[in-house]
Amino acid sequence: MSFVTEVAVRFRDHDSFGHVNNAVYATYCEQARVRYFEDVMGVPLSDPHIVVAHLELDYQAPIEGVGTAEVEVEAGEIGDKSFPLYYTVSYESEVVATGETVQVAMDETGRPTRVPDSWRDAIAAHP
Amino acid sequence: MSFVTEVAVRFRDHDSFGHVNNAVYATYCEQARVRYFEDVMGVPLSDPHIVVAHLELDYQAPIEGVGTAEVEVEAGEIGDKSFPLYYTVSYESEVVATGETVQVAMDETGRPTRVPDSWRDAIAAHP
Amino acid sequence: MSFVTEVAVRFRDHDSFGHVNNAVYATYCEQARVRYFEDVMGVPLSDPHIVVAHLELDYQAPIEGVGTAEVEVEAGEIGDKSFPLYYTVSYESEVVATGETVQVAMDETGRPTRVPDSWRDAIAAHP
Amino acid sequence: MSFVTEVAVRFRDHDSFGHVNNAVYATYCEQARVRYFEDVMGVPLSDPHIVVAHLELDYQAPIEGVGTAEVEVEAGEIGDKSFPLYYTVSYESEVVATGETVQVAMDETGRPTRVPDSWRDAIAAHP
Repeated sequence: MSFVTEVAVRFRDHDSFGHVNNAVYATYCEQARVRYFEDVMGVPLSDPHIVVAHLELDYQAPIEGVGTAEVEVEAGEIGDKSFPLYYTVSYESEVVATGETVQVAMDETGRPTRVPDSWRDAIAAHP
Repeated sequence: MSFVTEVAVRFRDHDSFGHVNNAVYATYCEQARVRYFEDVMGVPLSDPHIVVAHLELDYQAPIEGVGTAEVEVEAGEIGDKSFPLYYTVSYESEVVATGETVQVAMDETGRPTRVPDSWRDAIAAHP
Repeated sequence: MSFVTEVAVRFRDHDSFGHVNNAVYATYCEQARVRYFEDVMGVPLSDPHIVVAHLELDYQAPIEGVGTAEVEVEAGEIGDKSFPLYYTVSYESEVVATGETVQVAMDETGRPTRVPDSWRDAIAAHP
Repeated sequence: MSFVTEVAVRFRDHDSFGHVNNAVYATYCEQARVRYFEDVMGVPLSDPHIVVAHLELDYQAPIEGVGTAEVEVEAGEIGDKSFPLYYTVSYESEVVATGETVQVAMDETGRPTRVPDSWRDAIAAHP
């Protein structure tokens, strides 16, 4: 099942075209991701053992107001040292963007390492 | 009476000190201000007839998490062509900053003009 | 040949890990893109006839200082209604990220349209 | 004498009015300040012994392009535990904003402390 984070759109998120700037969607996904890390995986904000290695966004419709966006996060298949998260960003019940990030697990020395079992279990346990 | 806007603190609002960056408080006040403009004064986001001429912020305590900040807005005495708004930013029931902006009313040609009566009435009517 | 834009890294670009935040790379690419639009294609900032439909970033190394990043832009093969741009972000002579965006040409009604010949020629003419 | 930092205006700095957003001026001043801390005072970015307690900005003209802004920094009279910095932001040879911040010196426990003599000397020595 998925995990939904609400993100309040700010006036500052808009650019001179009067809609939410492309780069800001990466921040919306980040905000959903840090919530997912904390709430689903038990990994705090300041944990240096996850690094984002890849980001992808597809833009489908502009966000023109300053209401609330919803970001749905779903984990994909967990690999040896990395795992993907998929995002669906909605605004006023319309899907406005979809995205993906790939997270790499890091050891104490900052090298990629096997995704810990505790994370695997937590991700799998999320209903 | 005052007008309160909730602002969700984002991970991206933090700087390398691990707390909300100074400049971001100006964005929190802006977010509260655009809500005040819309909800209290009936002035939409895109209205070019209000310009912020002055901003002032006093920082009292850092915001270290990514919870919800509250920004309370109160209007001060309305002058001929401008009016002040006062802000109190709280986080976890603690006042973390106070601020002030001065707004100037602009006419169609982009020159300062008398604050319209409709704004004066709306501000006064806010209980 | 490629087109290089220098982007000054700001303290505000860093997040609480003390390096440039993932989302900010999208802004660096945007800054390079608007320069490319203006300088190579003769398309001004405010032109509503190009929309970014897709963004992709691969992160290779963190940016930890506040020096100058270089963003190299290269156009890929131009399609019927869209064209890709490829980005290489360097910092202190090291490649720190690569990226891609897909731009779609829009007509007056906001629908995808054929990439204008003037853009095709300008992109091809860039030595 | 004064200390000038160039700040490259970004497309992302603009808001939906098509000019640099009010809050972003605080970031421009911050960028000039961290340069001043490093270059004049020898205080690195990550030093936790200076805290900004107050920020003030007066806006005089909008910045509508994405050229280079200049931020001039001058120190004011150094107090017991704090000192002011004054900012003049120019764009295309026109002053667009002026500002002030008050910095407080902090000891190891995070309490205000006397501004160190090394800072006093460095500020005074700046020609």
